[in-house]
Amino acid sequence: MGGVDFLADERNKAEFDVNEMKIVWAGSRHVFELSDRISRLVASDPAFGKDNRPMLSRKELFKNTLRKTAHAWKRINELRLSEEEASKLRFYVDEPAFTDLHWGMFVPAIKGQGTDEQHQKWLPLAYKMQIIGCYAQTELGHGSNVQGLETTATFDPQTDEFVVHSPTLTSSKWWPGGLGKVSTHAVVYARLITDGKDHGVHGFIVQLRSLDDHSPLPGIIVGDIGMKFGNGGYNTMDNGVLRFDHVRIPRNQMLMRVSQVTREGKYMQSNVPRQLVYGTMVYVRQVIVSDASNALSRAVCIATRYSCVRRQFGSQNGGAETQVIDYKTQQNRLFPLLASAYAFRFVGEWLKWLYTDVTQRLQANDFSTLPEAHACTAGLKSLTTSATADGIEECRKLCGGHGYLCSSGLPELFAVYVPACTYEGDNTVLLLQVARFLMKTVSQLGSGKKPVGTISYMEQVEHLMKCHCEVQIGNTFIFYSEDWLKPAVILEAFEARATRMSVACAQNLSKFTNTEEGMFSFPLFINLLSSKHRCVSLILPFSSGFSELSADLAEAAVAHCHLIVVSKFIEKLRQDIPGKGVKQVLGMLCNIYALHILHKNLGDFVSTGCITPKQASLANEQLRSLYSQVRPNAVALVDSFNYTDHFLGSVLGRYDGNVYPNLYEEAWKDPLNDSVVPDGYHEYIRPILKQQLRTARL
Amino acid sequence: MGGVDFLADERNKAEFDVNEMKIVWAGSRHVFELSDRISRLVASDPAFGKDNRPMLSRKELFKNTLRKTAHAWKRINELRLSEEEASKLRFYVDEPAFTDLHWGMFVPAIKGQGTDEQHQKWLPLAYKMQIIGCYAQTELGHGSNVQGLETTATFDPQTDEFVVHSPTLTSSKWWPGGLGKVSTHAVVYARLITDGKDHGVHGFIVQLRSLDDHSPLPGIIVGDIGMKFGNGGYNTMDNGVLRFDHVRIPRNQMLMRVSQVTREGKYMQSNVPRQLVYGTMVYVRQVIVSDASNALSRAVCIATRYSCVRRQFGSQNGGAETQVIDYKTQQNRLFPLLASAYAFRFVGEWLKWLYTDVTQRLQANDFSTLPEAHACTAGLKSLTTSATADGIEECRKLCGGHGYLCSSGLPELFAVYVPACTYEGDNTVLLLQVARFLMKTVSQLGSGKKPVGTISYMEQVEHLMKCHCEVQIGNTFIFYSEDWLKPAVILEAFEARATRMSVACAQNLSKFTNTEEGMFSFPLFINLLSSKHRCVSLILPFSSGFSELSADLAEAAVAHCHLIVVSKFIEKLRQDIPGKGVKQVLGMLCNIYALHILHKNLGDFVSTGCITPKQASLANEQLRSLYSQVRPNAVALVDSFNYTDHFLGSVLGRYDGNVYPNLYEEAWKDPLNDSVVPDGYHEYIRPILKQQLRTARL
Repeated sequence: MGGVDFLADERNKAEFDVNEMKIVWAGSRHVFELSDRISRLVASDPAFGKDNRPMLSRKELFKNTLRKTAHAWKRINELRLSEEEASKLRFYVDEPAFTDLHWGMFVPAIKGQGTDEQHQKWLPLAYKMQIIGCYAQTELGHGSNVQGLETTATFDPQTDEFVVHSPTLTSSKWWPGGLGKVSTHAVVYARLITDGKDHGVHGFIVQLRSLDDHSPLPGIIVGDIGMKFGNGGYNTMDNGVLRFDHVRIPRNQMLMRVSQVTREGKYMQSNVPRQLVYGTMVYVRQVIVSDASNALSRAVCIATRYSCVRRQFGSQNGGAETQVIDYKTQQNRLFPLLASAYAFRFVGEWLKWLYTDVTQRLQANDFSTLPEAHACTAGLKSLTTSATADGIEECRKLCGGHGYLCSSGLPELFAVYVPACTYEGDNTVLLLQVARFLMKTVSQLGSGKKPVGTISYMEQVEHLMKCHCEVQIGNTFIFYSEDWLKPAVILEAFEARATRMSVACAQNLSKFTNTEEGMFSFPLFINLLSSKHRCVSLILPFSSGFSELSADLAEAAVAHCHLIVVSKFIEKLRQDIPGKGVKQVLGMLCNIYALHILHKNLGDFVSTGCITPKQASLANEQLRSLYSQVRPNAVALVDSFNYTDHFLGSVLGRYDGNVYPNLYEEAWKDPLNDSVVPDGYHEYIRPILKQQLRTARL
Repeated sequence: MGGVDFLADERNKAEFDVNEMKIVWAGSRHVFELSDRISRLVASDPAFGKDNRPMLSRKELFKNTLRKTAHAWKRINELRLSEEEASKLRFYVDEPAFTDLHWGMFVPAIKGQGTDEQHQKWLPLAYKMQIIGCYAQTELGHGSNVQGLETTATFDPQTDEFVVHSPTLTSSKWWPGGLGKVSTHAVVYARLITDGKDHGVHGFIVQLRSLDDHSPLPGIIVGDIGMKFGNGGYNTMDNGVLRFDHVRIPRNQMLMRVSQVTREGKYMQSNVPRQLVYGTMVYVRQVIVSDASNALSRAVCIATRYSCVRRQFGSQNGGAETQVIDYKTQQNRLFPLLASAYAFRFVGEWLKWLYTDVTQRLQANDFSTLPEAHACTAGLKSLTTSATADGIEECRKLCGGHGYLCSSGLPELFAVYVPACTYEGDNTVLLLQVARFLMKTVSQLGSGKKPVGTISYMEQVEHLMKCHCEVQIGNTFIFYSEDWLKPAVILEAFEARATRMSVACAQNLSKFTNTEEGMFSFPLFINLLSSKHRCVSLILPFSSGFSELSADLAEAAVAHCHLIVVSKFIEKLRQDIPGKGVKQVLGMLCNIYALHILHKNLGDFVSTGCITPKQASLANEQLRSLYSQVRPNAVALVDSFNYTDHFLGSVLGRYDGNVYPNLYEEAWKDPLNDSVVPDGYHEYIRPILKQQLRTARL
């Protein structure tokens, strides 16, 4: 770049080795080097420029994305990039496109649910993009409830075909990315009907468009569902609508790895365990959690750098005003988000390990850890995406008025991120799934069935129900807020909170006495809080009580998930981490994350007696002190993400901090500035000024 | 409309008189009738249609707004609308435009800060729109800190002129709405310099553009600052940048009501009290609070109606699925927002009274209530706009995936609303102003100076520091969660929380012992919590301690503001409210608002000992019961806002609930659907599919 570095002072303040931190952030030296190389490749290629995005009309925007996608594919082939490199390249191009669904959903669906024969037929075509596919599951009237889908695939034994049909308006496929304008094929989810019997929802490969001229095949109505949040945002994607009018496909286009329909129309299960699909789910959610740390870290990087550039108030004797990052209110909003970005990074890394572990177990027919893995990934998806969506918007607000400009990059980052709270499981629905698992775990305590993995802390239920936080209060003159830096103290407080909230929910559930379907057994420590250990077996009406208490249950689920994030951060710190000061500053972030969560959820901790109000106030004091400690490292901590200015796409977040001249330059690029006197002056402004409106034609 | 009303069942369930509630919501029968008439006028005029907004490019969008603005002005004149009617019409046209600033900032600035002579010269021109004005205060480098503005207006006694100049890049005026492309004039804020002396920031009327051909006058560089958040959103507004190169204006264009510069260049204060400007500030913030209730109620209306239409899960024997509004998790997120919309309505109404009261006092030279009025309006602006911005986004999420479509209306509502958190005082900065007032009030307790208005509860500081919430716990079998419905119980809990948080902050402030400038005296009840009433006078280092503890102080300010909203809602319920069931259902909303705030801020209430954990759990129980009670009234409560489908601008929020066919229709209007095969297919998609990319020119 070669210009002046306006943030050099900030960088000089750092107390740790930034280059080593970059490797910690990336996960390994290999990934760091790969990311670094590919991100520079993208940033230096003018064909991938994205600064004009907000100004384009929908059609221009979409065509521009088609161009970039083709260019990316061309470069991937020219440079003979590996699958890993190609995927990084798409990531750094940073524009949602049909290829995301082709590579991220269509290919994996065939791989995971197709037979060997189907793999041989379809995968080579897909790998070369001779066909382009999408994933058509959700319908106009059906999102979260997959079992409620209405599209039908009826087997016709006469012709050995399935007839795919949209029986109602609400059965129209709605939302699939890449469907609207591009995909030639789709994996379509439909109710399988054979001989009048409904076998539930299954996947089918359906060709949608002609490979000759791209026109929709007979019986298929397909189009784009229209503009979405933001001006660029997800509008580069052709989320689509799709209707079938008795479309016929060969029988062998049903994905038959797990269940089959024979030539005679007989429905059969294969000997492949159905649980295998959960492996995919763990994988997808792990990607989502990593993406959360990507998105949040981008926003935090922008807000942190700009908070150092921006000055407001506090000028002494006509000198410079105070950098806004030095205000405690700014630190109190920004630093917990910085800490969250790191926390989500490490929990995402751990999820990668979990995916490997689950996959190996599944292959060995060991399904024992599946419920725990399912609950934990569901909860982490919910927690991290919600926190990231809110965090991006908070970062935008931390940039004051200028954060509202598209040139800050933050509006588009928000608009493009928020769907993560809804897709792949609505975040509230997911929390209730976690809560269901928690209630089941509580019900099995004392039954001899040991809680495993992230829920194993519940084994210490007796201790956790009655323990007292060990942070010492001291006397009027000596306080022990440093006690709050001890991992064991933090862990126990979070474990106690999560346990007590789950047990309290279970106790409340036990009060619902009407007997309905869906109840399940609760051999429950019913009076644990009074430390009498009565192990009573109760029949609990699961459905009505669960529904009535669902808001409390969701909160208990959040408490459990907070604990997972905190404990994985602490685990990370127990590893060898080389580099001067790296581990120390990560330790600060870990404590900031935990103590900030504690403060934000103080009601949980104090009302369950996990900590006292005085201990809470010591935690707060420690938090303030941690803010001061992390402050000199702030810019270096966001530099460690190693984002190029191209990827950040933000004038406020520029590496060199040279914000104002560039904001000023950026403004003049708006199409409204093409002419000094705006289009419409003669028709609409002048007649007002000249009092000639009465006769004007508007 | 004439079609089927899919929400008729919901409307039949209502237990109150909707027509009477409409009048309560509007504030009076007069306002209801006016709003009803004008909103229908706008909705029935095709020239005000807005459904194509997200699809337009910036230039088309802006020109379209110019057209609507001219049409609105034409109709206002043709129909000889009163000022009140004209303002309502602009409100229902629902599109940010330069006229907002002309009428809302330019005219009031001249009225408030101009002399009689200046009124006579400028107001008739502005009233007829023979000139169009804006309000040029903020600069590229200066937002919240008005005293830091850099633009200068230097008096030249030779020519009896001011020379307006932008000495630096950061002094460029930046953000003023209407400035970029339209305004002919501006009220410009600049540092007044006479004879080398800087007298601080003053307002000047400056002509920017020729009234003949609209070109910028010599020495003036002016343009639009570029795209902002959202595709429609605020992009209909020409927020602008403006630079002066030694622009000369006559001396009589300084707004001279409060201070003057004489022909000789002498700077003088008039005998008009400077405090008069605070009256305007109270007015502006009252408008912002009312706007918060407008925006939040729109989002809640959309989410409530759609939550009744949308069904998901829970199908029994193949019947219809459960309406999502019947899920407690949905109610727990939606109903507090419904309650907040009403709460903000009533506190906004009360602020109108406060404005009148303050104005009358100012005219009688009574400035005694000013600090309290200032703190209270600052705090309410902050509280209501933050809650509304978050609430709109929450409503969008409550609509699931479809809320992400522009046709839901929610993305644009959010994008256009969020700047309210930043303009007219950044919300965090405002909370610290409130906190400063709170600390001052605490410091004066016992000094004989009585706290007035919304802070008068602090008079009972001794009682509030030690009182115990009276909600009865009963025994294992009898609970008294109904105690939580008593206004006195709720008020005392909120008063105690606010008081204890303020006092705790004051106590912590007193620990900062280094003496600096900015300290102030704290005759403080230093050990009130231990109920020893030592009234110690402390010298507090205001600046460093205040800054260090600012996050806690902001929380104390929020607690004070919550109390104001709750208490004004309770006051409203003490008035006569006619109409079957109207008062009862408002009572439910008031309790939902209060108990939800209590739950969300449980840490405050429990850790300060205002309530016990058991009482908190009873409050939660009561809250759940209130949700069930309000449920049948939900649709009628949002019908009471009396919004037309035009104003709502949401397929999901349609009055008739006929969502799906209209969503489907709406999709096909997207420009991408103009052709079946998308523009770009031949250049970019076909070469991929046909493996011809290597030779393609991209």
